[in-house]
Amino acid sequence: MNKRLGKQTVLFSQPVGILAASSVVGPKEGQGPLGQKFDVVLDDEMAGVDSWEKAESELVRQAVELCATKSKIEMTNFDYLIAGDLLNQSTGSIFGVRDTNLPYLGIFGACSAIGEGMSIGGMIIDGGFASNIIVSASSHFCSAEKQFRFPLEFGSQRPPTSSWTVTGAGAVALKAGADKVSVLGCTTGKMVDMGTTDPNNMGAAMAGAAADTIVAHFKDTGRNPNYYDAIITGDLGYIGSDLLIQMVSKSGYEIAHNHKDCGKEIFDKDTQNTLAGGSGCACAGVTFAAHFYEEVKVGRLSKILFVPTGALMSPISVQQGESIPGIAHAVIIENTGG
Amino acid sequence: MNKRLGKQTVLFSQPVGILAASSVVGPKEGQGPLGQKFDVVLDDEMAGVDSWEKAESELVRQAVELCATKSKIEMTNFDYLIAGDLLNQSTGSIFGVRDTNLPYLGIFGACSAIGEGMSIGGMIIDGGFASNIIVSASSHFCSAEKQFRFPLEFGSQRPPTSSWTVTGAGAVALKAGADKVSVLGCTTGKMVDMGTTDPNNMGAAMAGAAADTIVAHFKDTGRNPNYYDAIITGDLGYIGSDLLIQMVSKSGYEIAHNHKDCGKEIFDKDTQNTLAGGSGCACAGVTFAAHFYEEVKVGRLSKILFVPTGALMSPISVQQGESIPGIAHAVIIENTGG
Repeated sequence: MNKRLGKQTVLFSQPVGILAASSVVGPKEGQGPLGQKFDVVLDDEMAGVDSWEKAESELVRQAVELCATKSKIEMTNFDYLIAGDLLNQSTGSIFGVRDTNLPYLGIFGACSAIGEGMSIGGMIIDGGFASNIIVSASSHFCSAEKQFRFPLEFGSQRPPTSSWTVTGAGAVALKAGADKVSVLGCTTGKMVDMGTTDPNNMGAAMAGAAADTIVAHFKDTGRNPNYYDAIITGDLGYIGSDLLIQMVSKSGYEIAHNHKDCGKEIFDKDTQNTLAGGSGCACAGVTFAAHFYEEVKVGRLSKILFVPTGALMSPISVQQGESIPGIAHAVIIENTGG
Repeated sequence: MNKRLGKQTVLFSQPVGILAASSVVGPKEGQGPLGQKFDVVLDDEMAGVDSWEKAESELVRQAVELCATKSKIEMTNFDYLIAGDLLNQSTGSIFGVRDTNLPYLGIFGACSAIGEGMSIGGMIIDGGFASNIIVSASSHFCSAEKQFRFPLEFGSQRPPTSSWTVTGAGAVALKAGADKVSVLGCTTGKMVDMGTTDPNNMGAAMAGAAADTIVAHFKDTGRNPNYYDAIITGDLGYIGSDLLIQMVSKSGYEIAHNHKDCGKEIFDKDTQNTLAGGSGCACAGVTFAAHFYEEVKVGRLSKILFVPTGALMSPISVQQGESIPGIAHAVIIENTGG
């Protein structure tokens, strides 16, 4: 229990290194501001298979394989694989990693998956139970729209609060001991329910959870926002980010100057018609892998708090009148030997 | 890494005690052979709410609350809540524990959830990151049939290979240091795909995964089947259990004499029309909480290997022609101070 700080935060006894990070995305993501940075940009959203769900699994398969290759570790030498996505019964992850033959821990934290996975993976490694773990997170615009909202063929009009689910899969390889970029600890989120019931306004549903986790992190650690070069949420988008900054400010912490959001970084809203911004498990996953991880690696950012955010809803829960609880898991990531 | 044994097994540095275990079930489970042992048997499957999904959440809510009460620990003093179920986007767990206000780690391992949760929870505690963790797993016959097979109103004929999803929620409270019953380590399963495509034969889909994990456990630890008083799978049922015993035998280990399966224990197949046996996340969850945990506590069983089993399918994956990978997570549980 000596690694615990406050109610929600743990600090590892030594850094958990990030050996490598990989990103595989769809064509629209490739046309966005980060397009040149992704490892693989697919020519079409079907990824060479015959359904959107299988396409998502194919993205996962490629991202996990690439992550192992970049790590220079044989797939069979990883101790665990931790993966999560948005699809019913984790179809994207399961059929994407089925052939790795690794001990598998499935997670569900909606779009916070990469943060939940890095938290659990970090604790397993720092606890002495593993040397190397791969964590992956994925989403696909077409499979997500079909499942959560309307079939694409229906051609529904998207309200301005709606976000654009990122097509992609991001993976990170964690290892015992520091690397150039390392995870130093995490703050695990509680569910926060702001009473939002609109599945076309995920930013508003998640802002409260992100604020709750970020403020808990500051209180648990005694740090203030300026300890970090950037505080990076997962997929709040434009509307959720504004709400977050206001809510954190009400708790006495100002983050307007160093807050960033993967959902704002990944698309150009003026030319890509992505409305409130990017979303989905892959939004935080691939933006971290392709962009922020590299920024920390080369030292342009030294210390970041990475806070993937999730909206814990299903179509059934929404149809039955339930509100949408949010959750956000913060991961402390630093340059530890650039 | 000193806690690792072989490729899939870890042994904790000290026992992780099970402070308490709770079970809340539906009326059919209450009429079965274990009926008197459950903490709460509901009068009807709706649990006083207006949908099957909400009923499942209500079962979770009651089981988690009861588990905290039996532990004599305030809910707010648990460090994490880990939960999983079968419903789309984990609706059963999320709306069941939303109000606990605890740091939440959602998992998905299909019906292996209670085993995956106890494994992750045990590693987090033994790693020094938490003192107390609640783990829960749930399923509901009506919500599961509706989602995975046919609406109940359709009145479909059930083939003899089909199992009966248990309506219930089971929870365990883990703590740092030994209790009367403790978790000593775990063997995390790999996905094993036997090529089964029939969603009405879960036992066959999961038997290979259970055999793989059990044999890996013997190889990793150097133990043989007689080390344990019982080797208890989650929900293989009658057909899957027979397959398991044959498959493990082919690997050179005989478990016919001490193998038990929660899916065979929970219902009386002759009078309850449950065909191949019980299944669902709650099958292993409540049978462990109400029966096997108590058997170890009073010393009738001293050492058990608890192996919850899961079928990693969704209706979409089955409709798209995918086979059904299985997974099984083994947990070592012993009487440590009866």
